[in-house]
Amino acid sequence: MPEIGIGARVRKSPFFDATVEAGATMFTIYNHMYMPISYGDPMREYSALTERVCIWDVAAERQVEIVGPQAAELTQRLSARDLSKCKVGRARYAPMCDHDGHLINDPVILKLAEDRFWLSIADLDILLWAKAVSGEGDYDADVFEPDASPLGIQGPNAEDLVAELLGDWVRDVPFFGHAWAKLDGIPMVVCRSGWSHQGGFELFLTNSDRGTDLWNLVWDAGQKYGIAPGGPHFQERVESDLLSFGADHPLDADPFEVGLGNLVDLDAAHDFIGKAALIAKRDQGQRRARVGLHLDGEPILNVDSPWELNLDGESVGSLRVGVLSPKFERNIGIGFIDIAGVQVGTELVALGPDGPRVATVVPLPFS
Amino acid sequence: MPEIGIGARVRKSPFFDATVEAGATMFTIYNHMYMPISYGDPMREYSALTERVCIWDVAAERQVEIVGPQAAELTQRLSARDLSKCKVGRARYAPMCDHDGHLINDPVILKLAEDRFWLSIADLDILLWAKAVSGEGDYDADVFEPDASPLGIQGPNAEDLVAELLGDWVRDVPFFGHAWAKLDGIPMVVCRSGWSHQGGFELFLTNSDRGTDLWNLVWDAGQKYGIAPGGPHFQERVESDLLSFGADHPLDADPFEVGLGNLVDLDAAHDFIGKAALIAKRDQGQRRARVGLHLDGEPILNVDSPWELNLDGESVGSLRVGVLSPKFERNIGIGFIDIAGVQVGTELVALGPDGPRVATVVPLPFS
Repeated sequence: MPEIGIGARVRKSPFFDATVEAGATMFTIYNHMYMPISYGDPMREYSALTERVCIWDVAAERQVEIVGPQAAELTQRLSARDLSKCKVGRARYAPMCDHDGHLINDPVILKLAEDRFWLSIADLDILLWAKAVSGEGDYDADVFEPDASPLGIQGPNAEDLVAELLGDWVRDVPFFGHAWAKLDGIPMVVCRSGWSHQGGFELFLTNSDRGTDLWNLVWDAGQKYGIAPGGPHFQERVESDLLSFGADHPLDADPFEVGLGNLVDLDAAHDFIGKAALIAKRDQGQRRARVGLHLDGEPILNVDSPWELNLDGESVGSLRVGVLSPKFERNIGIGFIDIAGVQVGTELVALGPDGPRVATVVPLPFS
Repeated sequence: MPEIGIGARVRKSPFFDATVEAGATMFTIYNHMYMPISYGDPMREYSALTERVCIWDVAAERQVEIVGPQAAELTQRLSARDLSKCKVGRARYAPMCDHDGHLINDPVILKLAEDRFWLSIADLDILLWAKAVSGEGDYDADVFEPDASPLGIQGPNAEDLVAELLGDWVRDVPFFGHAWAKLDGIPMVVCRSGWSHQGGFELFLTNSDRGTDLWNLVWDAGQKYGIAPGGPHFQERVESDLLSFGADHPLDADPFEVGLGNLVDLDAAHDFIGKAALIAKRDQGQRRARVGLHLDGEPILNVDSPWELNLDGESVGSLRVGVLSPKFERNIGIGFIDIAGVQVGTELVALGPDGPRVATVVPLPFS
């Protein structure tokens, strides 16, 4: 693998120094920030995540804060999901679209107060998007990136570890529930969330000077729980069918196509951006989909670039992601395809660099 | 240096395979695309750039196309520079601001037709910004990312090389002039531009399937000119005082502070985004600036994170970038500081990881 350049243009997470100290060997860049994605042994990280507990620097999952008298109105204008029932202290996974109905992000939206929201975003500058909509629409709301950097604590032991650090009250925090907390004077928002299916919390550090302190407190307390450093785990997220925005689909995909149609409230009263285009798409009928695949052949280590998927010799789309699944003990993958003539059980042909292999369409989530 | 993860989430340039073949050893991610920044020997790349000719994969310098009846009006709304005098076939370096007057990009804007523009952007999702402004303002214009990927040909021999490939007419293309061309059936826009001070062209490939073909044609013809692969060169760009958006300044900087005030047309008739805020800033007077520095002490290899700059023991800002300059045979750097009490010749103290060193303010461009 080539090296990654380190310099002033790309931001460092408050946990960057701690991750280097912990032995991070591979990074990506996400929301203009370095994000560690491996510490050299993916299977060690997998077993820690699925059997014990992991600590992840996911500060690159940046927040867009919207606050002020018209914050709720603006946030709703940006979101294809009806947020009117969301209570303070809870969150919603909510697709966002452009005016053409294309998916531009899939944030978790935390409602911190009636007039204050954090959009916890995937890798696209939703800060600019929200500022443009606010500024051009003259909303009475401030839009900015707050000092808020999630540290992920994921895995079956995550609750015990976070309860030991912060108190047993965290055991009563529901999924997507969140609350302010302090640990040794370090301020944070604690949320039961995270980009895995193994359970756990994200600690949204709100004083970036204390990143190493928070990391070390979690690390030390985590020793007895078998903690290991890691990052959003490629195999686990595919096994768990968590959407990776921008990886699983082309950039002109809509929420129906990627499988988030159930989160789009076309019948709600609010007129969010993209609503008219999505109604037209719904009426036209869906032609493409993100689908699960079983892939024959040798273990798949990585899909560097999408592999063409054929049906009867004709291209129907591409395999976006493929992995050897430890859980299912076979190759699984995610394709994005034209669905005419395709159903569960249809055998496609995936054209990888090492030759063709059979790719059978299977239901999502995988089982 | 740690490795960079390669996967489906980040796009590959049409020249990606060619750059790997040519021995790229280090990449960054820019506009959601891998961009090679070194082939293992920065000084070899420096001498090729300053004495012969370099080939750069700068496809990550993505284009935002704005086309349609109100394209000119929308483009002007986005730009702090008056574009009314720009002719078809020419381009402008034009800062863009948000509603608060903060610099959000410094694109080169190519005017392809009276109703068609390309914004050649630095690393921020201006595509989203422009779409939001267009959609919310109901402009009659299409905004999208075209299939257009610049290949940089930079250095004193660049003109001879490009003339040999495309014809002597390119010698008459003025700075920022551009024209459509074909080479072996490969379509492109040829522009006299590039992110160095060594002269040259950017070939905006408009059929991404032909990336390797174009690279190879340039590469083969370039042999007699001493061509070498490279990327935007850290030392050369600092020596030449080319702004690196997002590296040289914090994200709340305005065009005056970064040194682009002469490109902001506050007296023009058009009401661009940020104009009111910039008028207020002008009237308040400038308090911060991007400044040149001479730094004493051992050769500076890299500034991983900004170094604090002190004056009389008080922090006045930070050193954003520092390099040992081959041209000036000394350490030079770019700081972003509060300018009260600071002038050319003022000695600041830079707090690097290896201890303090004297940083003397010098005029930009360096001499």
